Amino acid sequence: MPSEGLFDGIFSRGGAADAVTGRAWLQAMLDVEGALARACARVELIPQSAAEAIAAACVADRYDVGEIARAAAASATPVIPLVAALRAAVGEAAAEHVHRGATSQDVIDSAAMLVAGRALRPTLADLAAAAEASARLADAHRRTPILGRTLLQPAEPTTFGLKAAGWLVGIDEARAELEDVCARTLAVQLGGAAGTLAAFDGRGAEIAADVARQLELAEPVLPWHSIRTRPARLAGALGAVAGVLGKVAVDVTLLAQGEVGEVREGGDAARGGSSAMLHKRNPVGAVSVRACAERVPGLVATLLGAMHHEHERAAGAWQAEWETLSELLRVVGAEAAWAGELLEQLEVDAGRMRTNLEASGVGLSSLASQVDAAAALVDRALAAHHADVERSRTGGPR
Amino acid sequence: MPSEGLFDGIFSRGGAADAVTGRAWLQAMLDVEGALARACARVELIPQSAAEAIAAACVADRYDVGEIARAAAASATPVIPLVAALRAAVGEAAAEHVHRGATSQDVIDSAAMLVAGRALRPTLADLAAAAEASARLADAHRRTPILGRTLLQPAEPTTFGLKAAGWLVGIDEARAELEDVCARTLAVQLGGAAGTLAAFDGRGAEIAADVARQLELAEPVLPWHSIRTRPARLAGALGAVAGVLGKVAVDVTLLAQGEVGEVREGGDAARGGSSAMLHKRNPVGAVSVRACAERVPGLVATLLGAMHHEHERAAGAWQAEWETLSELLRVVGAEAAWAGELLEQLEVDAGRMRTNLEASGVGLSSLASQVDAAAALVDRALAAHHADVERSRTGGPR
Amino acid sequence: MPSEGLFDGIFSRGGAADAVTGRAWLQAMLDVEGALARACARVELIPQSAAEAIAAACVADRYDVGEIARAAAASATPVIPLVAALRAAVGEAAAEHVHRGATSQDVIDSAAMLVAGRALRPTLADLAAAAEASARLADAHRRTPILGRTLLQPAEPTTFGLKAAGWLVGIDEARAELEDVCARTLAVQLGGAAGTLAAFDGRGAEIAADVARQLELAEPVLPWHSIRTRPARLAGALGAVAGVLGKVAVDVTLLAQGEVGEVREGGDAARGGSSAMLHKRNPVGAVSVRACAERVPGLVATLLGAMHHEHERAAGAWQAEWETLSELLRVVGAEAAWAGELLEQLEVDAGRMRTNLEASGVGLSSLASQVDAAAALVDRALAAHHADVERSRTGGPR
Amino acid sequence: MPSEGLFDGIFSRGGAADAVTGRAWLQAMLDVEGALARACARVELIPQSAAEAIAAACVADRYDVGEIARAAAASATPVIPLVAALRAAVGEAAAEHVHRGATSQDVIDSAAMLVAGRALRPTLADLAAAAEASARLADAHRRTPILGRTLLQPAEPTTFGLKAAGWLVGIDEARAELEDVCARTLAVQLGGAAGTLAAFDGRGAEIAADVARQLELAEPVLPWHSIRTRPARLAGALGAVAGVLGKVAVDVTLLAQGEVGEVREGGDAARGGSSAMLHKRNPVGAVSVRACAERVPGLVATLLGAMHHEHERAAGAWQAEWETLSELLRVVGAEAAWAGELLEQLEVDAGRMRTNLEASGVGLSSLASQVDAAAALVDRALAAHHADVERSRTGGPR
Repeated sequence: MPSEGLFDGIFSRGGAADAVTGRAWLQAMLDVEGALARACARVELIPQSAAEAIAAACVADRYDVGEIARAAAASATPVIPLVAALRAAVGEAAAEHVHRGATSQDVIDSAAMLVAGRALRPTLADLAAAAEASARLADAHRRTPILGRTLLQPAEPTTFGLKAAGWLVGIDEARAELEDVCARTLAVQLGGAAGTLAAFDGRGAEIAADVARQLELAEPVLPWHSIRTRPARLAGALGAVAGVLGKVAVDVTLLAQGEVGEVREGGDAARGGSSAMLHKRNPVGAVSVRACAERVPGLVATLLGAMHHEHERAAGAWQAEWETLSELLRVVGAEAAWAGELLEQLEVDAGRMRTNLEASGVGLSSLASQVDAAAALVDRALAAHHADVERSRTGGPR
Repeated sequence: MPSEGLFDGIFSRGGAADAVTGRAWLQAMLDVEGALARACARVELIPQSAAEAIAAACVADRYDVGEIARAAAASATPVIPLVAALRAAVGEAAAEHVHRGATSQDVIDSAAMLVAGRALRPTLADLAAAAEASARLADAHRRTPILGRTLLQPAEPTTFGLKAAGWLVGIDEARAELEDVCARTLAVQLGGAAGTLAAFDGRGAEIAADVARQLELAEPVLPWHSIRTRPARLAGALGAVAGVLGKVAVDVTLLAQGEVGEVREGGDAARGGSSAMLHKRNPVGAVSVRACAERVPGLVATLLGAMHHEHERAAGAWQAEWETLSELLRVVGAEAAWAGELLEQLEVDAGRMRTNLEASGVGLSSLASQVDAAAALVDRALAAHHADVERSRTGGPR
Repeated sequence: MPSEGLFDGIFSRGGAADAVTGRAWLQAMLDVEGALARACARVELIPQSAAEAIAAACVADRYDVGEIARAAAASATPVIPLVAALRAAVGEAAAEHVHRGATSQDVIDSAAMLVAGRALRPTLADLAAAAEASARLADAHRRTPILGRTLLQPAEPTTFGLKAAGWLVGIDEARAELEDVCARTLAVQLGGAAGTLAAFDGRGAEIAADVARQLELAEPVLPWHSIRTRPARLAGALGAVAGVLGKVAVDVTLLAQGEVGEVREGGDAARGGSSAMLHKRNPVGAVSVRACAERVPGLVATLLGAMHHEHERAAGAWQAEWETLSELLRVVGAEAAWAGELLEQLEVDAGRMRTNLEASGVGLSSLASQVDAAAALVDRALAAHHADVERSRTGGPR
Repeated sequence: MPSEGLFDGIFSRGGAADAVTGRAWLQAMLDVEGALARACARVELIPQSAAEAIAAACVADRYDVGEIARAAAASATPVIPLVAALRAAVGEAAAEHVHRGATSQDVIDSAAMLVAGRALRPTLADLAAAAEASARLADAHRRTPILGRTLLQPAEPTTFGLKAAGWLVGIDEARAELEDVCARTLAVQLGGAAGTLAAFDGRGAEIAADVARQLELAEPVLPWHSIRTRPARLAGALGAVAGVLGKVAVDVTLLAQGEVGEVREGGDAARGGSSAMLHKRNPVGAVSVRACAERVPGLVATLLGAMHHEHERAAGAWQAEWETLSELLRVVGAEAAWAGELLEQLEVDAGRMRTNLEASGVGLSSLASQVDAAAALVDRALAAHHADVERSRTGGPR
């Protein structure tokens, strides 16, 4: 991807962007090589001293990302030049033990899972913040009446708290799925040239388990090099996160319209200016969330469409995953970061909600019972949220 | 959708197609109205006699699908003409109790979940058959050597059993996810006009729980009318199923090439003919699987893109889900049906695998240990499969 | 596709739906067989009497769509059972001359182009109506002030006429592209088994040209069976139509919001009702346009993704086109029909536009010159529209 | 986008990648500001001296891409910090004349068209090279028999020249469309805050025409800020290019399979190595083309899905275009570069084609006439290609 994008302020917000740079990928690949060397040494396939030399050399700063990237064109994989560079770095004695028994795809697939895990950590934290902020809004406004709108027309009253509780439940559901992906779906890949583990002298299963432990990845039943359920599930979960945050942002931009004026983005006074109109206060956070959200379904479709790997390694579909997955992680990460801020700083105008409701022509005779009903649902959502936070904290089953 | 498609032989195979017809949707909507009436009677919101009259009238054959469909154009929802027809059918006394407290979206969303559940039942059965057939192939050919191929080039030996075990694990993973969707994600939707349950006189939560029980759907924390994590997760799970079966079919078409000749589709002798070439034996099943698979990522992307519902009911994004979900269920259902048959009838030519391997120029000096390694992985996959079948049978946690 | 969809009132509106039914496809395929027979007779490859018998039998009502569809499962193409049925229908003498020199793909690809052309005719008429209605709105309201809104916030004044002129120009651009697709991109496909025209005894080029003339399709440089630029260009043009109409509908739903109230859908008094709320007047047309629009990008992506045909006929990618193209034509056709009606019946509240503008806090000191500037642009757009209509009428180059 | 991607060797090949960097976007935006200043001076809206000072400052190297990108987060547009930086750079007298009458979207949309034009130049050159190479293969092998394969099964003989002629015609069609996009679709955007040109004191149309001339962009009928037919048509044309090259690469990977062996990628001896298997010669170019192609439909769908701009500026859909368009241009550019090289260096094994054909069991009794027929089609394709090259050279109408 081109260096220093002009739109990074929007799409590289949050911590995920740093986890998908060329350097971060390189480090992840080196982490795989290092863990493999240690595991091979543990079962005495390679000397302990070689493993130590290799592990010590597995530091991205010692290599030139651009050079490896360029050299990768000759083989359609950066692993070949990386292994060459690593061999050169470890000295003659250890060189032959680098990348022992592995194939390019082992390194890239395992690295992709590491990259995903590292990008998801800040994303999950931002989602937790977005959920907490929604919970606070739901709690504070459980009885704040607002006009319910269906097909963008006045419908019946609800409360702003219930609206926020809907956001909350959606975010929690999408987040729980993503946490489950982290726990169960991000798995090590190790199989060797044709995926049989044959080059590990009968110790392949042990080695794979050891590498998985070191990298804090799950251990799969089989090498999954050409069976792409894992990237697919990751993509699907990210797609759901993107969609649910997009819904929040759509609501915010609609509520912030001049004619509606029921919410406003808070935060930095410098925020939301226009190059042509000085009076404007644009919903920059919500617009950014929506911009991120809009990009996600196409990226998910690409990853799903790329599941048809031929035989033991795909001739194009696999390679198409690399940058697509990076972009997906980066953009959903940015979306979560923007959404967290947006919700934390959202300013609510309960008076304007009341005014609009009264002006809407919607009957208000049963408003009290509608507010009661909405508040009861808010309580229910908050209780579920607190249970979910607890479950997430203790790692219990859903 | 147009009546009697010319391509139904391919894309409506299996049982899912019958579950997504206009009539099936109508029945599902009537099932929701009936269950709602019964639940309302149980808490004495409507008379028992009215509930009985309504439930008795909730039979799709008593209504004209085409007429309701046409009338739906006036309101962009078939629920309005359906409720009118149902009111006419139940007689004057019960008429006012039809659709008590509900809104169009309650009926369509709950019906969509019913339709999904009914379409997934045969699909899951076909996936189970595909898994079993893969398991048999893995078992029978755990030590049958075959050339491993990476980037469509000769790589190193593996066994056909391990190839089939990869299919098996992929199918089982995708199937387990889809089962979990059935158990936890397909949920009733009930909220009333603005999603507050206010029209149910404080009994909304009970009624929703009762309707869920009757329809064998999960009970959500909140009405989820504008929070679309459920359709999104369903779509993602179907996307993974489609992709993993597509991989199987790609392998089959490649192995069945004239120059490779390692597998052949079995079954009906009439199968696989050509209109121009009498000598051909086309891999009809694998081609059909691939045709289905190719259509899925775009449909999944549509459902993910349609998550941005405005306020309490979307002005377009919701309505876009209806046929898209139907198509997705139908096409993935057809794909599973084709895949099951394909795998059950696959003819394997172990001799040709051996010949091709020997002719490939790939070194065979360590073939025995490669076969051993592959066979060990097959054992591991089969053990996991048997455990998974058992778990699925007993409904245990993953 | 399942028979009689419950959502046809929305998604099968307009004339395109009738052009993509199973029966319509069957007729298109028969039209190809008939034209081929006549062309073969003209160069004396088959007897004139056989051509007459074949042409006379090429009437869809004489065949059972469902039966052919079911039989198609054996070969993954409906052409084989259709040719068998046609042979049975023409009598023994003509039977051997049916489908002379052709292959399944010739018949289906040429039929797909016929189906597309027939579905596009009403769609183009509806687009012309939508453009005319936009032009009338632009003309009538060239000087009607309205608040310009950017990022859904108040910006500066513009006129409603300029807004409508933007719709007009967009519709005209998308329509011109689609007309060009009809004129140049919809081409006959004839190549025989491997695409060489070899089975036509050196007369293949003449026969292809004759068939093209009969079917009013373009004549390609080469048989294009595995080169899918034509479906791709058709898909892209439909995608642009869908997007531009979607923009119109988004604007309408936003302008029709209760708090804005600047436009309202007109037409039938029964239109726009709600099952839960009697007071509502929903923007049914705009919602339907948006629902259609939302479904299109995924379908376009499927057709683009299905361009990678293997060798002389694809093992899945080609077959994936059939229903996808039908759906795309049907849904965009419905969208155009809804958009035409919507624009023709749109009720504009110039007073409310003025009130909202004044209430917006946007400076009005230069309103007069802003209106002048907008009106000048409207004139320019109308002039371009009239030129475009004239060009379209006379078939001149863009 | 993250700096220095690890996969740039594959996806940033060719000249397009350099045209979509942050710096290239910045330069394009500055080019727009400079041209606007000159045009404003020409009609005496701003002093000539200010225009000169502004134009002189419009050099990207004078600004810090990263700083502008970061500052853009406050307003969701990089134009605000860019205009501030430009004002600081030109000195006090000229500062107020910077960005005269324009709005952010004018600058970004016009810059996007410039970026597209600059990225398409090398892409079109690479497509021309790919076409020429295909033409040479078609010419050289017009009578080289090869087995035609349908559904990946042996069909009837054709010639390799006809296969290459199919590639040629497809590439030429996709290229002609892209050229037409460059000539007619890439247009300047200038409208000011609400798109009325009101801030240009009645000289807006002249100024827009002048800017268009300076930037070698087309002049639109109206400002097109919220009417996205132009990005849509660009996306569609790129989608078709990607698909047709993908087809070429699929054929190459299939023909290069060990069991087929009819073509081989040529070029650099170092090309095509494997990290695990020294004997391999991987089809690196074709794999890279396929990897690029796989990513395109999702990106096109994103751009089509982002056409629904609200009112005078979209709250998310517009912003979603920026990086998506960059990626699309970069990836299709890389694909064209890979495809050009691949086709120029392709090694054809006519003997193996013959051997496989004879071994296929396909009847060869009419081989001579099949070769004649294929060769006649090749002649026709080459004639059309030469006419197309001539037309492209002279800029004549299609």
